[in-house]
Amino acid sequence: MIAEKMYELGSKKSTIRTIFEYGQERAAAVGAENIFDFSLGNPNVPAPDFIKEAILDILNEEEPCAIHGYTIAPGNPQVREILAQSINARFSTTFTGKNLFMTAGAAAAITVVFKALSEKADEFIAFAPFFPEYECFVESTGAKLVVVPAQIEDFQINFAEFEKRINSHTKAVIVNSPNNPSGAVYSEATIQKLVAILEEKSAQYGQPIFLISDEPYREIAYDNIEVPYLTKYYKNTLVCYSYSKSFSLPGERIGYVVVPDELVDFNRMYAAIAGAGRVLTHVNAPSLFQKVVARCAGKPSDISTYVTNGTLLYNGLLEAGFHCVKPQGAFYLFPQSLEADDVAFCERAKKYDLLLVPGRDFGCPGHFRASYCINTDTIRRSLPLFKKLAAEYNK
Amino acid sequence: MIAEKMYELGSKKSTIRTIFEYGQERAAAVGAENIFDFSLGNPNVPAPDFIKEAILDILNEEEPCAIHGYTIAPGNPQVREILAQSINARFSTTFTGKNLFMTAGAAAAITVVFKALSEKADEFIAFAPFFPEYECFVESTGAKLVVVPAQIEDFQINFAEFEKRINSHTKAVIVNSPNNPSGAVYSEATIQKLVAILEEKSAQYGQPIFLISDEPYREIAYDNIEVPYLTKYYKNTLVCYSYSKSFSLPGERIGYVVVPDELVDFNRMYAAIAGAGRVLTHVNAPSLFQKVVARCAGKPSDISTYVTNGTLLYNGLLEAGFHCVKPQGAFYLFPQSLEADDVAFCERAKKYDLLLVPGRDFGCPGHFRASYCINTDTIRRSLPLFKKLAAEYNK
Repeated sequence: MIAEKMYELGSKKSTIRTIFEYGQERAAAVGAENIFDFSLGNPNVPAPDFIKEAILDILNEEEPCAIHGYTIAPGNPQVREILAQSINARFSTTFTGKNLFMTAGAAAAITVVFKALSEKADEFIAFAPFFPEYECFVESTGAKLVVVPAQIEDFQINFAEFEKRINSHTKAVIVNSPNNPSGAVYSEATIQKLVAILEEKSAQYGQPIFLISDEPYREIAYDNIEVPYLTKYYKNTLVCYSYSKSFSLPGERIGYVVVPDELVDFNRMYAAIAGAGRVLTHVNAPSLFQKVVARCAGKPSDISTYVTNGTLLYNGLLEAGFHCVKPQGAFYLFPQSLEADDVAFCERAKKYDLLLVPGRDFGCPGHFRASYCINTDTIRRSLPLFKKLAAEYNK
Repeated sequence: MIAEKMYELGSKKSTIRTIFEYGQERAAAVGAENIFDFSLGNPNVPAPDFIKEAILDILNEEEPCAIHGYTIAPGNPQVREILAQSINARFSTTFTGKNLFMTAGAAAAITVVFKALSEKADEFIAFAPFFPEYECFVESTGAKLVVVPAQIEDFQINFAEFEKRINSHTKAVIVNSPNNPSGAVYSEATIQKLVAILEEKSAQYGQPIFLISDEPYREIAYDNIEVPYLTKYYKNTLVCYSYSKSFSLPGERIGYVVVPDELVDFNRMYAAIAGAGRVLTHVNAPSLFQKVVARCAGKPSDISTYVTNGTLLYNGLLEAGFHCVKPQGAFYLFPQSLEADDVAFCERAKKYDLLLVPGRDFGCPGHFRASYCINTDTIRRSLPLFKKLAAEYNK
């Protein structure tokens, strides 16, 4: 009577959602200040003041019909040109507005790209740990998501396992760096090795294997670490970007796909992106926020809170005896759980009202995700509880 | 290498887009004031002042994290409750927030509903003239769109043709009243007859046939004509609404689906809507504008310009000798073309720089669409040209 698959997808609560709701119940019972909810990835840094200023300027300077009217399907041409030039200024690329397709954030961008690429029997490869929604996005196009197990020493790419999984059905590989949930940033060496394999396999199979760069956390990178801009390394790259994290605008759904000229058959690819946007009704990204991000192009992201929080939590967890790869970006830690069963570990953590997400949700069991885009004081007060939790395992 | 179907959908320019681009070229050649572009459905009435005031109030009164942060997938619970109460106040319904799922406008709402309902071999029925994008939205779910020919006398429903097309594969029927492109509003008698057939056929086939009401033009109805609220007539109705036209916010992508309690198996249906929203990444509709429309709930749409324009164009075309069903809503006229071949007619109209859309684009040849959400003076200056065009056919 209805689409069973849609019912399943809509009725099965995500782990994160379940934890969040549990947290709300506990908060009602014991007080919100006693709940240490590390489950959500909602930025707690407010949008910078220049966002509000840009909105006010637009409302005061432009006509309502221009502000709130339809743009063309790929987005406002002036906005796309400004954003292209801003990317060029930072990464020495040579994009113009026609290389951008505005979308309702990175999730929409990825979905549109999967839909544009996907043909029968296609496979898309992701590297664990990975954003779990990739799976239903890929499957809804009729293709299959193939997961490469994590390289848990550093959360760079496990190339031996990757090479076992790449084959003539591989349509594209998706990377997410800085990574949710590990916080890892792929090094230039990792990218170069990845690209060498993609080049070799594309030649071997006589068809391009595309590289999709899902990068909503690009701006949230620490210690001035370089996050390589992938179109410069591999011509068949599509970049999916969002302002959700960089400008703390997750609810506004604004981002873009970059489709470089160098792509094999740019015109056909851009048209397929447009076609996918059309059937998924992801055309004409929200118009006011198209103008807002154009006005704010190139302005800095304020990552100071994440630096403070990340350092505090990382050091606190190490002190409590946890093992954790030091994050280089994003706002998550992905430590090893203190027992092999990460679900059991996260259940046990609830005793202290520490709400953590099991690693298997990200394709990487034996770990847990702790999001530190929360109040700094909450983190500080949680540290003794992590110590108590760890002590249980040392008895 | 890419999805051929997406390439086709993205590369084939729509008729309206082709006309629009032609108009831009002509404007460059002969001056914009000499082009009479009746092709686009972009509201020319600016968003009312209360929209700007609501944005400013929200920016001044609320925290940035609350304004621009993620809402839950179906949308802000307070917003949904306010909108539900607003619908109840107008239509004596009994919805609560849990009956609403916020979407990025009506197009997203329809797409989500099609995806939530569609199973293998399903058929969806639309009544000509209809919004042409229904076809690719339905087909992308794997289902088929079945079109009932127009009843050109009044653009109500051609029931004889409808009954020929309804069968055990019919999953749902979609109606759009006030109608794009005809301007017709389905009368209560039409709705009652439609519902009687749906009830009978649902019983006959032992499964519900759903009714989808696509109603972005609900507020744009003339002479106080009543636009029946369909959930009150048929329990298995899903309403798809948008603020694009009522508040002149087409670029902001804000609307909702109403899922009534009375629907057969409400819980499964709402979950399927949520699942469809998830795979199509139509969750968390733009957050600022969720708050804006909640603040403006129940405020009136300013349709005075459309009344003026519609009257002017309708009378002018009648005087020129056209035959046209008088519109009762929306902002389009859908007159008969002066030769059977509506494409040839629209080509001929270009001689006078009158840019019109052939009726066959809406499943109704022998007609053309003239959108009157344009400058009133442009309409006034176009009338002598329509006369000249008509005179060509009277030679």
